[in-house]
Amino acid sequence: MIVLYPGTFDPITHGHTDLIRRATGLCSKVVIGVATSKKKDPCFPVEERVRLVKAAIDHLDNVEVRPFSGLTVDFAREVNARAILRGLRAVSDFEYEFQLASMNRNLNPEVESLFLTPAEEYAFVSSTLVREIARMGGDVSHFVDPAVSKALQAYCRAEQT
Amino acid sequence: MIVLYPGTFDPITHGHTDLIRRATGLCSKVVIGVATSKKKDPCFPVEERVRLVKAAIDHLDNVEVRPFSGLTVDFAREVNARAILRGLRAVSDFEYEFQLASMNRNLNPEVESLFLTPAEEYAFVSSTLVREIARMGGDVSHFVDPAVSKALQAYCRAEQT
Amino acid sequence: MIVLYPGTFDPITHGHTDLIRRATGLCSKVVIGVATSKKKDPCFPVEERVRLVKAAIDHLDNVEVRPFSGLTVDFAREVNARAILRGLRAVSDFEYEFQLASMNRNLNPEVESLFLTPAEEYAFVSSTLVREIARMGGDVSHFVDPAVSKALQAYCRAEQT
Amino acid sequence: MIVLYPGTFDPITHGHTDLIRRATGLCSKVVIGVATSKKKDPCFPVEERVRLVKAAIDHLDNVEVRPFSGLTVDFAREVNARAILRGLRAVSDFEYEFQLASMNRNLNPEVESLFLTPAEEYAFVSSTLVREIARMGGDVSHFVDPAVSKALQAYCRAEQT
Amino acid sequence: MIVLYPGTFDPITHGHTDLIRRATGLCSKVVIGVATSKKKDPCFPVEERVRLVKAAIDHLDNVEVRPFSGLTVDFAREVNARAILRGLRAVSDFEYEFQLASMNRNLNPEVESLFLTPAEEYAFVSSTLVREIARMGGDVSHFVDPAVSKALQAYCRAEQT
Amino acid sequence: MIVLYPGTFDPITHGHTDLIRRATGLCSKVVIGVATSKKKDPCFPVEERVRLVKAAIDHLDNVEVRPFSGLTVDFAREVNARAILRGLRAVSDFEYEFQLASMNRNLNPEVESLFLTPAEEYAFVSSTLVREIARMGGDVSHFVDPAVSKALQAYCRAEQT
Repeated sequence: MIVLYPGTFDPITHGHTDLIRRATGLCSKVVIGVATSKKKDPCFPVEERVRLVKAAIDHLDNVEVRPFSGLTVDFAREVNARAILRGLRAVSDFEYEFQLASMNRNLNPEVESLFLTPAEEYAFVSSTLVREIARMGGDVSHFVDPAVSKALQAYCRAEQT
Repeated sequence: MIVLYPGTFDPITHGHTDLIRRATGLCSKVVIGVATSKKKDPCFPVEERVRLVKAAIDHLDNVEVRPFSGLTVDFAREVNARAILRGLRAVSDFEYEFQLASMNRNLNPEVESLFLTPAEEYAFVSSTLVREIARMGGDVSHFVDPAVSKALQAYCRAEQT
Repeated sequence: MIVLYPGTFDPITHGHTDLIRRATGLCSKVVIGVATSKKKDPCFPVEERVRLVKAAIDHLDNVEVRPFSGLTVDFAREVNARAILRGLRAVSDFEYEFQLASMNRNLNPEVESLFLTPAEEYAFVSSTLVREIARMGGDVSHFVDPAVSKALQAYCRAEQT
Repeated sequence: MIVLYPGTFDPITHGHTDLIRRATGLCSKVVIGVATSKKKDPCFPVEERVRLVKAAIDHLDNVEVRPFSGLTVDFAREVNARAILRGLRAVSDFEYEFQLASMNRNLNPEVESLFLTPAEEYAFVSSTLVREIARMGGDVSHFVDPAVSKALQAYCRAEQT
Repeated sequence: MIVLYPGTFDPITHGHTDLIRRATGLCSKVVIGVATSKKKDPCFPVEERVRLVKAAIDHLDNVEVRPFSGLTVDFAREVNARAILRGLRAVSDFEYEFQLASMNRNLNPEVESLFLTPAEEYAFVSSTLVREIARMGGDVSHFVDPAVSKALQAYCRAEQT
Repeated sequence: MIVLYPGTFDPITHGHTDLIRRATGLCSKVVIGVATSKKKDPCFPVEERVRLVKAAIDHLDNVEVRPFSGLTVDFAREVNARAILRGLRAVSDFEYEFQLASMNRNLNPEVESLFLTPAEEYAFVSSTLVREIARMGGDVSHFVDPAVSKALQAYCRAEQT
């Protein structure tokens, strides 16, 4: 079974990587779809986000990273994914995910939405907070790949000048 | 009893229409108040949102559609509404609604807040997701009135040029 | 409009009374349905719960108190209620209420479920905690009618002997 | 991939069946594990619950129904399941499921927990409410298989005599 | 500042111990109040629960363990605690805790309710699930003190004979 | 024990003041940290927010108000605070707070996160809604200090011209 794991990955965290690693144990292939357009004001451009995802999942097999725009269900069909994989961390996640899954099912009933929960130590890591901490000069190396950590530092230096 | 159903309706969905239809069975009149100012960056201007609401509820009796600005409780008084009607879809809705109801009660204790839940098939429809799907070229005709669907297509075409 | 306010009322609290009072301002009649069978092991028998509800709402007009067994939607039809009224206090309430409303709509689509939220000072009062506090000898007079307070004291004395 | 779908199924509802049907589209085999011991006071004995599950999923391929006792992760290993499948309906579900998934991961890190959400029309169906409605003489045929409906009627008749 | 950490501790888990350890860093003394009566059917009698709490917190200073019955606010006053400490793990916890804090404040406005969150690795550990796993022969040594683990094994053996 | 109560306070409400008052009863000193940078588009500049906090807590002892930028844990260390104090009003608060507490603990394990819940009458007051009501000409004097009320009126007049 091929699954699509879509997201903004702005930037990818250890929480995402943990989920992808575990998904590879369940599926024949995991396609990571990096959405170009979802957020109006991303921290990193999509090419950079794709590069950082690739760096973070370097050690995993059967994973493919691709940028995409348009509807997630259309991209799922394009990559022959039978299911859309999403991580569930918290209640607010769940509410939004349920809405999303429900509308995606309306748009294409043949693609299922599948959920995994991250390991406990990553249950409270979020890209938003990682960006916020980095902006204030905090050390985010516990939460992200070294390549991401370096990119965030460069980004924050550029932002301040 | 007259009730006020206030909202941004950007745009009106089948979830809203279902709620209004059921409210008309309980009240002598439902005033739909289309807020001009609530959102900073609405998809449609208020006149267009009023027009689309009117198109979507065309088949219902005892309903009046009016734009409004200012406090909801003040508008409720203006239209002689004894209660403000709100839809409840999910937990995050509820939290915000409880805050709103509590503050409105402080501002005017004589106006009650009344809640209905949408039919199951609309429990996960949201204006935000409808806009997002339309922007990506998805088919939203399961979620909204044909007039809204047409307006969204025109809007998205305009946005891309 | 006649509404049915069903519950176990084991015992009735100021939260319930506040809701009923506000409902009487919106409807022509509020029928309070005291469920005989919902809970397996109620604190008070249904006759006593009916008596305490009557004592607590003594000062309100257009209210009728009746015990009932069987389906809530059937009793709603019996008393000509167009809607079932329920109070919403918290998230866990809401989840259960949404399930209940959804199933009731399936059983009888002509009866709506209508929700009100209690005043802030009663938002966290629950019959379960009131019973627990009374059992431990605590003073529950802030939360319930004097008649209920007295009945709880008698009940707790009886339980300990 | 083989997945285990464990539960009490007391009784199986259309919500469960919908989930199983969709899981069969994603996995090579779905083992339905009917827990003998989870609930202290089940409505139906485990043999009857197994029989009703079999009746409800009769039309589905690649599904196996088996009673089990003991730890879910141990039974998962026994049937060579790579993942435990669970349905997510609501917030309260999610909280409990997250605890369960977390503890199961501690007990056996090689078995993943996988979640699906039911179709909208079944999002609010629960075995508990189905039993409650049946007990009060309500018609549960919208929520369960005809075989289950019949068994519930027999059960309720027996309970009343 | 003296704080009271009340609970059933049936049995004490690493989640509780982690909270107590961190509380000792903030307060001059932590009184652990083991409630005798809260649960109708505890796994362990109160003396055994006190013994297990003592075993689990053996390495901590400024901690006192005492059984209590009656209202928590009354026991707080008895031990001169300025605040009641509670752990927050999840949404459902929070709802109940908010009700409890609100009612306790009504019963005695001079005792505050104070909350800490457990470390991530214990965020999903619960006494209820620990008991359930132990009953099914699972290994709970990741979640509880060795003394508790041993007591649970003895308890489960006794239950089965 | 010194505690840091960080926030944007845009503007300070009676909910915040109530929390601070109760915290002063538990700690030797409460440092109120007014964050300069958290929000991209605050209603009031940080100097004004500091001034309004000072006006609102004028009657309280052992409180210090200071603006800060950078990481909260770093500022906590700077003012020798052993704990970061946060208010908990609702579920959505809690989710975010848990993430924040978890990440702060990673950044500095020696600073604890401590939570208090506001009094019932302030449980639903939020700075965001207060600003919204003021903008629409509503009376916010039930929710904020007279100095804040006056500042909001001036701000709204300026915004409209």
